Amino acid sequence: MLASHTLLRAILPSAPVICERMGKVHQEDSNVKEKNSEFSLVRVKGTWKSKLGMKIKDTFDCVSAAKIYESITEKGTSWTVVSPITFTYKVTETHGLLDSSNDTLLLGHITDPQQIEDIKRSNKPIRRFVVIDQEVYKIYGPKLTEYLEANDVVYKILALSTTEENKSMETALKILEEVNNFALDRRTEPIIAIGGGVCLDIVGLAASLYRRRTPYIRVPTTLLSYIDASVGAKTGVNFANCKNKLGAYIPPAAAFLDLSFMQSVPRRHISNGLAEMLKMALMKHKGLFELLEEHGCMLLDTKFQAGNNVYGHNSVKVASQTTQIAIITMLEELAPNLWEDDLNRLVDFGHLISPALEMKVLPSLLHGEAVNIDMSYMAYVSHESGLLTEEEKQRIINCMVGLELPVWHEEFTMELIQKSLQDRLKHSGGLVRMPLPIGLGQAEIFNNISCDTLQKAYIKWCEELSVSSDSTCDA
Amino acid sequence: MLASHTLLRAILPSAPVICERMGKVHQEDSNVKEKNSEFSLVRVKGTWKSKLGMKIKDTFDCVSAAKIYESITEKGTSWTVVSPITFTYKVTETHGLLDSSNDTLLLGHITDPQQIEDIKRSNKPIRRFVVIDQEVYKIYGPKLTEYLEANDVVYKILALSTTEENKSMETALKILEEVNNFALDRRTEPIIAIGGGVCLDIVGLAASLYRRRTPYIRVPTTLLSYIDASVGAKTGVNFANCKNKLGAYIPPAAAFLDLSFMQSVPRRHISNGLAEMLKMALMKHKGLFELLEEHGCMLLDTKFQAGNNVYGHNSVKVASQTTQIAIITMLEELAPNLWEDDLNRLVDFGHLISPALEMKVLPSLLHGEAVNIDMSYMAYVSHESGLLTEEEKQRIINCMVGLELPVWHEEFTMELIQKSLQDRLKHSGGLVRMPLPIGLGQAEIFNNISCDTLQKAYIKWCEELSVSSDSTCDA
Repeated sequence: MLASHTLLRAILPSAPVICERMGKVHQEDSNVKEKNSEFSLVRVKGTWKSKLGMKIKDTFDCVSAAKIYESITEKGTSWTVVSPITFTYKVTETHGLLDSSNDTLLLGHITDPQQIEDIKRSNKPIRRFVVIDQEVYKIYGPKLTEYLEANDVVYKILALSTTEENKSMETALKILEEVNNFALDRRTEPIIAIGGGVCLDIVGLAASLYRRRTPYIRVPTTLLSYIDASVGAKTGVNFANCKNKLGAYIPPAAAFLDLSFMQSVPRRHISNGLAEMLKMALMKHKGLFELLEEHGCMLLDTKFQAGNNVYGHNSVKVASQTTQIAIITMLEELAPNLWEDDLNRLVDFGHLISPALEMKVLPSLLHGEAVNIDMSYMAYVSHESGLLTEEEKQRIINCMVGLELPVWHEEFTMELIQKSLQDRLKHSGGLVRMPLPIGLGQAEIFNNISCDTLQKAYIKWCEELSVSSDSTCDA
Repeated sequence: MLASHTLLRAILPSAPVICERMGKVHQEDSNVKEKNSEFSLVRVKGTWKSKLGMKIKDTFDCVSAAKIYESITEKGTSWTVVSPITFTYKVTETHGLLDSSNDTLLLGHITDPQQIEDIKRSNKPIRRFVVIDQEVYKIYGPKLTEYLEANDVVYKILALSTTEENKSMETALKILEEVNNFALDRRTEPIIAIGGGVCLDIVGLAASLYRRRTPYIRVPTTLLSYIDASVGAKTGVNFANCKNKLGAYIPPAAAFLDLSFMQSVPRRHISNGLAEMLKMALMKHKGLFELLEEHGCMLLDTKFQAGNNVYGHNSVKVASQTTQIAIITMLEELAPNLWEDDLNRLVDFGHLISPALEMKVLPSLLHGEAVNIDMSYMAYVSHESGLLTEEEKQRIINCMVGLELPVWHEEFTMELIQKSLQDRLKHSGGLVRMPLPIGLGQAEIFNNISCDTLQKAYIKWCEELSVSSDSTCDA
């Protein structure tokens, strides 16, 4: 009676369980008495069936990438399910995102051209739920409303204060109540988030929770979120006094990037974003470093805008180049490691000590400023370790000063450094995994930097930079 | 200066964007002026670099499965990230899960034998945070404590009332506060959930949120959760009066199944679990159907336990066979569709009308009971559509009665049927996707069942079954 069921009867006597995970291949200990079988999954007329062995691709039309491994021992039977989920998301640059003729905001996330056609031909109005930061709404609210009206969208705009202080599950639940009242259809109506990183993070989490996953769209309105939060998969809220303690790794359906939002960003917050850009430059891209070194002041003056400024057309070109390189280098590091399973991450540069510093002096330092102070110290660690020449180190510090970023802070103490690195050891599988520049635009992860080196670098860092914390673009 | 960066300079003039998603291949419209490029990601000394084209596997050691597609049009540049995440989880049968010599609960989720060795050799005590249903704790609390003490575990047990009424984000946050107080290390300390489906769902969500993903372990203590909630990836809480409106698709690190927990499950709740087992039998496995048909009463009497009962050793064999087949058939359907992207799901059988019925008469029907009433009606729809013979239909109904499950309910009205199917249309991409048995142990998805057929089936169903709603095993 049961013999008809492949998975129950078919057992390979001695086949090892080969379980690919994170690129590693494990083989079961052959001393343990086990019967192991590998099953592929094939679909026959709408029913999935498990089939023994690996050579089934030729005989069935629909074979899943998922596998089931069965192991029978004296203790009982165990099944290991290996199931890949593929995330696909778009990061799209556009101009005039809120111009009523630009359909990116409404349709730009759709990858199937036929689906876009169908929507355009349909009589049904498009429905969208939009969450926008309150301050951003003050500036762009009328334009957004006009855009939605002009495109006959049935919409609800929720303007919220999205600061670190209310980056909480309560805010996410408030959004979810409104989403639910809107009777949102998760198949066809992505939630749109417009704002800085905090706004994008909260909305991303809310959307990821709604009906176990509702697509969402990120529209960054600060430079930091433009090149950082928009590009990755992370969402989150603060919890129990800890930054982003609750969250999910669910990328948006799309991030729509429009540099024109930067014109309303205060100069200090442009610097703030430039710090994360500099991070990618130092880790991966000498060209980007040289652009920032040469044109930092121009980027601050023009705020990445075109228009009649003293810098002429060059400013547009540099704005476009720098943001594109920052995004691409970020995508290169994030795409292969979307869920951060690999703990060796170059994007952690500047983020080893800075979280503790940021929380300690809150709200006096912006995120990018704290990151920059961390990077500045790490440049000294690199130099002390013989990875950077004196000249390279000096160029990095000068570039930071040119970007109007702080390079030293009195609360960034040796004690803070040691405590942070100890915490990191705990959360990073016992290794400190310190990304350090080795020359300009290249980096490696180090686990063996000695306390002595950290100490010497710290003393030198203080000697050379503790006086220069007041820096300007004109210097 | 920029020329060194492959992704910026290297552009294939006319290569189509081939974007694999859900098995389908999209090609961009060739009329649109686009420059498209496909980039693979390779790791060189810890840095990820994007490389043009597909033939790079031979020249680099570490190539990611992720891809970046770049598209440059007049509107701007767009990058599409395609990044697969592989979920690996274990479903393990064991005996005596709480016997102090059984290390499954503490180490059974680990796939790397070396890691198990390391832990066993280490002097550091194992730390575990356990959430257990309050009622289950009353029965198994002392044994659990004894187990943890005997294994020198540093532990915190949180006993909670986990009912539909408090299946909420508030409960999840309560768990998260305690998890945070425990200073749980997400890399090495999976959260353990012990209880029925509600408990496993809430804890699963809480764990998935903590630090963006903390592994968790499911220990089902009811028959329903043993064969259903434990096997899949879904977590959730109720929200705004809707079942599981908030949640995530994150499978546990492992589910540990011990049938001995069933001895404390009330007879009605054994029936409740048998309903979901019958669902898999009707959809996929005639052998399972025949086992339930023949031995339903025995399974209810013995509660899947061995021991001195009138049925002898046969009861153990049948208990093991039925649960294994139920789990395997469920895994077959879930593994290829872990995130439910494919809307054609056989596991939806019995779940088209029953959610509305369950909510309408709450708490008078258990989940499996409502599912069974739905399945009973659907058997009539199948018969009316010529998919089941009269004899097959009758065998199904008789089997249900033998399992002491209700086969009819006065609140299961034609109006409820129509409203539910309309809702389903909306949430299932415009198709009703109705799984129906076509013979015993086989099924297909149908989209073209007419209102007339539904109506006729309904009348017949009421005629034949409305009197027989009081059924017992002895009948």
